[in-house]
Amino acid sequence: MNLAEYIRTVPDFPKPGIGFKDITPLLASPEAFRECITQCEAAYPAEGHDRIAGMESRGFLFGSALALRQGRGFLPIRKPGKLPWECIREEYELEYGTDALEIHKDACGPGDRVLLVDDLLATGGTLMASAALVRRLGAEVAGVLCVVELDFLQGRKRLEAAGLKVHSLLHVTGE
Amino acid sequence: MNLAEYIRTVPDFPKPGIGFKDITPLLASPEAFRECITQCEAAYPAEGHDRIAGMESRGFLFGSALALRQGRGFLPIRKPGKLPWECIREEYELEYGTDALEIHKDACGPGDRVLLVDDLLATGGTLMASAALVRRLGAEVAGVLCVVELDFLQGRKRLEAAGLKVHSLLHVTGE
Repeated sequence: MNLAEYIRTVPDFPKPGIGFKDITPLLASPEAFRECITQCEAAYPAEGHDRIAGMESRGFLFGSALALRQGRGFLPIRKPGKLPWECIREEYELEYGTDALEIHKDACGPGDRVLLVDDLLATGGTLMASAALVRRLGAEVAGVLCVVELDFLQGRKRLEAAGLKVHSLLHVTGE
Repeated sequence: MNLAEYIRTVPDFPKPGIGFKDITPLLASPEAFRECITQCEAAYPAEGHDRIAGMESRGFLFGSALALRQGRGFLPIRKPGKLPWECIREEYELEYGTDALEIHKDACGPGDRVLLVDDLLATGGTLMASAALVRRLGAEVAGVLCVVELDFLQGRKRLEAAGLKVHSLLHVTGE
């Protein structure tokens, strides 16, 4: 099964000139979704991590399903103000301005190996901030897993320079 | 296993006087998360629905995991402007003002039986709007499934008055 056939490119979303990679056809197909999670598991067998972190919101879809499959705890990384308990926050740069992510202080800690899961690797800002949050809590980042990687934005370079292992199921090579 | 032990009440979140039901301890425990999904499956066996809809963002966590377990397609229902393709929108009343949800036009259609999954049933506004979206696309709502129900807010009454079957794993009876 070629998972790329289940990714729909939506032109000019969220703004003109951007071809958005829509994962909803993949989720809508039980066979494609199962194959996707199976490929995630092949890339990162359960023995290599204790917990799985998903980034709000689409990272939740793959991260929680993989956590269930692998028998691992799931922890959410969210936009500011969404997590109800005590948090730490990490700001990161956007094209214009800054954004931030938060993690609960008890989400992980020393001795934990955390796999980061998101749907898309673009410039890598979200994943860099997420890795920083996990590391600030004393845990190790076991790896980064994305469904789609936009190779031309070179987010992988930033992540690998920060010592992170990166695996993506699908690669988009050109704009 | 008593799943209620994995729900943490956070006082005064998101505003003074509200005791927020925090599901992150449940997600963090592989055993509790597995038991939660097993109880979801017991309430709504796979034969009764063709697709599972999850409401942004916490409904994604349970809906996608259940969809994987049951071999059913997953469809996201999201806040306006988040879904990239053609959508329909449903507005609903909040305590102050209105909010809205969107669904892709190809998410479901006539002949589909859709199970709605969210983490929390409070006043039922989100689930009423979600049911309306699914029905406007010609599909049937097979049922509503929530992890936690705040009985005192009586959201169930509204949903059942709209002909919806409702099941919650946990009930909070008092404020």
